[in-house]
Amino acid sequence: MRKEEVAMESQPAGAGPVDHRTLPRRRGETLYAAIFEATLAELADVGYARLTMERVAARARTSKASLYKRWPGRADLVLAALRHRRGAPSPTPDTGGLRGDVLALLRDGAAQLNGLMGEVIRGLMAEGLRESTPIATVRTSMFDSRNRRMSEVLDRAVKRGEIPAHAVTPQHIALAPALVDHHFLFYGAPIPDHVLTEIVDAVLLPLLTRPA
Amino acid sequence: MRKEEVAMESQPAGAGPVDHRTLPRRRGETLYAAIFEATLAELADVGYARLTMERVAARARTSKASLYKRWPGRADLVLAALRHRRGAPSPTPDTGGLRGDVLALLRDGAAQLNGLMGEVIRGLMAEGLRESTPIATVRTSMFDSRNRRMSEVLDRAVKRGEIPAHAVTPQHIALAPALVDHHFLFYGAPIPDHVLTEIVDAVLLPLLTRPA
Repeated sequence: MRKEEVAMESQPAGAGPVDHRTLPRRRGETLYAAIFEATLAELADVGYARLTMERVAARARTSKASLYKRWPGRADLVLAALRHRRGAPSPTPDTGGLRGDVLALLRDGAAQLNGLMGEVIRGLMAEGLRESTPIATVRTSMFDSRNRRMSEVLDRAVKRGEIPAHAVTPQHIALAPALVDHHFLFYGAPIPDHVLTEIVDAVLLPLLTRPA
Repeated sequence: MRKEEVAMESQPAGAGPVDHRTLPRRRGETLYAAIFEATLAELADVGYARLTMERVAARARTSKASLYKRWPGRADLVLAALRHRRGAPSPTPDTGGLRGDVLALLRDGAAQLNGLMGEVIRGLMAEGLRESTPIATVRTSMFDSRNRRMSEVLDRAVKRGEIPAHAVTPQHIALAPALVDHHFLFYGAPIPDHVLTEIVDAVLLPLLTRPA
């Protein structure tokens, strides 16, 4: 469904060679939008493993150089395109209770892993694992925002008196999303909802609500 | 160090073509040992990504068919070779206390991930993630034995009265090794020892020792 949407918005890939130098020059927002659209369409069509800067440039009717000028490689380009598509980060869930908030965060993460983001994570991890290179870009892109949101949720639970302040540690903040990643990497997507509720009810909440 | 050991035990890879049909026929244990040795030497020399059944067959001076007769693909062959090298499973740690036992298990797992086993896990995961195929072989090979050992350790802790019986659940048994995997996949090996002690002291023990 999302795949078709993306494909319909973009230029058809097989529309024949176009000399982009003869087109009116696009700048700023317009050019970025065209590049991101082409990136997402390529991702949906051929997947991360077969996506190349060359194919994206052709689809966006621009040059490879104009891509490399802005992004050092396809990993950066693809992650930028996904951020662009996501738009402003959605507000951190605020259901009035810790369990609801945490589950909402995990469900949001699981939904992303089940879409183009999951395809990209798989591709980036495969690359990093194969070449045994550190995958700092993936880590930043995955961990920073979710840790910030989880901290916010836990801090609110402390203020409501649901959990003690000492429960909010870096280990506990990162824990549940790490278990979701683990399931994704070893079992694939979609992640069944009972996996998420078990992480919350059997691991995270018992740990957070534990008396000192 | 291990790399050199393996390489010295095996046939040199560049020793020239040999018609294995003219060699005395090896059977059973001897042939298996030669194949496993060749597999480990290839792994150490070229890594999982570039290991092929063809190269292993050449190095073991046997035919590709004789490999495929026994193992459906390189994943199965490589895992069998690692099992062969490991020999009988080492006894489950029994230090007299839960913390010591769990730490010993995690350290053993981390040490394996830092050797040829880690190279193979990386390769198999990369393959599975790239092709979006289930990696049942990796899961079985990683999870079965470690879950059995962790259960044993936790059951002993229940008998000693260190933790309540209701603490021993599938989620808790799988938890700490999953966090070690997560660290390995996102940060690589070797895994620093403080990561292991934090998993034990900040997550697993607080959860297991929690009153009902």
